[in-house]
Amino acid sequence: MSAHVRLIGLDWGTSSLRAYLYDVDGRVVASRRHAWGIRQLPEGGYAAALQAITADWPPCIAVAAGMVGSRQGWLEVPYVDVPADAAAIAQGARRVEACDTHALWIFPGLRQQAPANVMRGEETQVVGALTQQPRRGAHARFVLPGTHSKWASVSDGRIVAFDTWMTGEIYALLLQHSILGAGVSVDHAKPLPGPAFERGLHDARASGDAGVFGRLFWVRALMLNGELAIEDVPDFLSGLLIGEEFRLASLRDRGDSAVPLCLIGDASLCQRYATAAAHFGYTAPTIVEDAAASGLWQLAWAAGLLAQAPSFGFFGVHA
Amino acid sequence: MSAHVRLIGLDWGTSSLRAYLYDVDGRVVASRRHAWGIRQLPEGGYAAALQAITADWPPCIAVAAGMVGSRQGWLEVPYVDVPADAAAIAQGARRVEACDTHALWIFPGLRQQAPANVMRGEETQVVGALTQQPRRGAHARFVLPGTHSKWASVSDGRIVAFDTWMTGEIYALLLQHSILGAGVSVDHAKPLPGPAFERGLHDARASGDAGVFGRLFWVRALMLNGELAIEDVPDFLSGLLIGEEFRLASLRDRGDSAVPLCLIGDASLCQRYATAAAHFGYTAPTIVEDAAASGLWQLAWAAGLLAQAPSFGFFGVHA
Repeated sequence: MSAHVRLIGLDWGTSSLRAYLYDVDGRVVASRRHAWGIRQLPEGGYAAALQAITADWPPCIAVAAGMVGSRQGWLEVPYVDVPADAAAIAQGARRVEACDTHALWIFPGLRQQAPANVMRGEETQVVGALTQQPRRGAHARFVLPGTHSKWASVSDGRIVAFDTWMTGEIYALLLQHSILGAGVSVDHAKPLPGPAFERGLHDARASGDAGVFGRLFWVRALMLNGELAIEDVPDFLSGLLIGEEFRLASLRDRGDSAVPLCLIGDASLCQRYATAAAHFGYTAPTIVEDAAASGLWQLAWAAGLLAQAPSFGFFGVHA
Repeated sequence: MSAHVRLIGLDWGTSSLRAYLYDVDGRVVASRRHAWGIRQLPEGGYAAALQAITADWPPCIAVAAGMVGSRQGWLEVPYVDVPADAAAIAQGARRVEACDTHALWIFPGLRQQAPANVMRGEETQVVGALTQQPRRGAHARFVLPGTHSKWASVSDGRIVAFDTWMTGEIYALLLQHSILGAGVSVDHAKPLPGPAFERGLHDARASGDAGVFGRLFWVRALMLNGELAIEDVPDFLSGLLIGEEFRLASLRDRGDSAVPLCLIGDASLCQRYATAAAHFGYTAPTIVEDAAASGLWQLAWAAGLLAQAPSFGFFGVHA
């Protein structure tokens, strides 16, 4: 395996660490995942996590993106301001001198001054998705659903602006801790949302400019009225919250819903967002998986790290 | 004391129980408060709580409002639909047959069909505030800040419609459980909000139709950027969330911000809402305290319970 190996890429977030091993052509030849996010490191910290997840892999250059570059991470890498393309992001990389086992660089996140906003890790996924969907680079919106869902506007291959919606976190908080979740049990095994999800989308859309607060208490009122079954609460709430993202996004787009959407992330969550996109009149979005792996490779290339370190000779390994 | 005593009123919510003892003129001659809300009853349940909180009080007729009349309460009292005035609410009262110590009636809450909404207890406070502010009855909006903040529109003495904002609950959830509260400690002893509160109001107002989600993550981004001190996070978030209520309320009022606002509730919270009202161009609101006590008396009167049971003779006590 080591013969053609060229780079290790690390997608290192708050709650998980994913490692990719690439061949000289940028193909992922091996990948591993562990729960060693920056909030739950093993004994020995970052170095121990890196060593363990790359055990048996040749010691090539490594690059990382995500919360590992935050103030709470291994090395704080200052944000790069938007607008920014892959080259601008790559230029902001910092080398982790404290890493003894690898030549390791961490890429920066992006910052928007007004309205104030930040991302760490998602920029790398957008870069990866752009590589896979180069036609999208002209003018598109990349949506990354999750705990903090990001909507990034891309123009001519540059991320020019972005929004953050705390949809996933608020959904979880409301179900776990608020009156809306009282007596509700979430069936995590359920693969697809039921009709209550579309009902939530519909109600979000029909709500005019009433805002999410007024709608949230509907969930409780509808349940008390017998108009919403308790087992439908999670899907309805999910529809309301995701619908709120799209309602406000389409307000901003003001009829420009022909802008192509590209969804990046977990397949079942992307499917919910695709349903919402259709409901709000957007053209069918493309869905990109494994965007982080492509993005890390692309940024390593843009940073000149691959040119500096050819796979043959430098590490003394060649087939 | 028992000579002129006529009624016991119970404001019985989720987390507290407050009891009032009235004289024949409806003046409160004694009041007690305990943490025996319907979620934390003493051993012996409702009956024990009632007996303990009215210990040494003469056994007169008792009336109650609040979550004690919910499905999880002592006796479920069906909602009355809006529009409703004091007489309509009073007519919905149900007697608690299971109460051995008092002739006890519980008043219903109010229900709005579309958009679906419910309240229990706040209707009694609005009735009480209307008694104290009869001029307001023609056309006014009553605002009851709290865990679930209620905005009730009153016309000709009837509650015609209302909204619920989960402002207080969401504020607490975000500070206690979300990324926004990471590292933040709330100074509950602080009597007045600092300038960060007004900054939150301003940012909510300036946000156009971007919605609360996008603004919520600002809190994090501004903090990371060094533009918001960590100790200012609670006030800023409070300003954003309360500002969101007023931003959307003023959208609905569409320039009709001359509608008189009446605030009901905790003095320091009402002060925050009064500041927000001024910020959003509303005329200075009146603030009503102890509205529940007036409302319970008023509803008992409207239900004919006071006429049926004069203080002299019926209980055999007279000065």
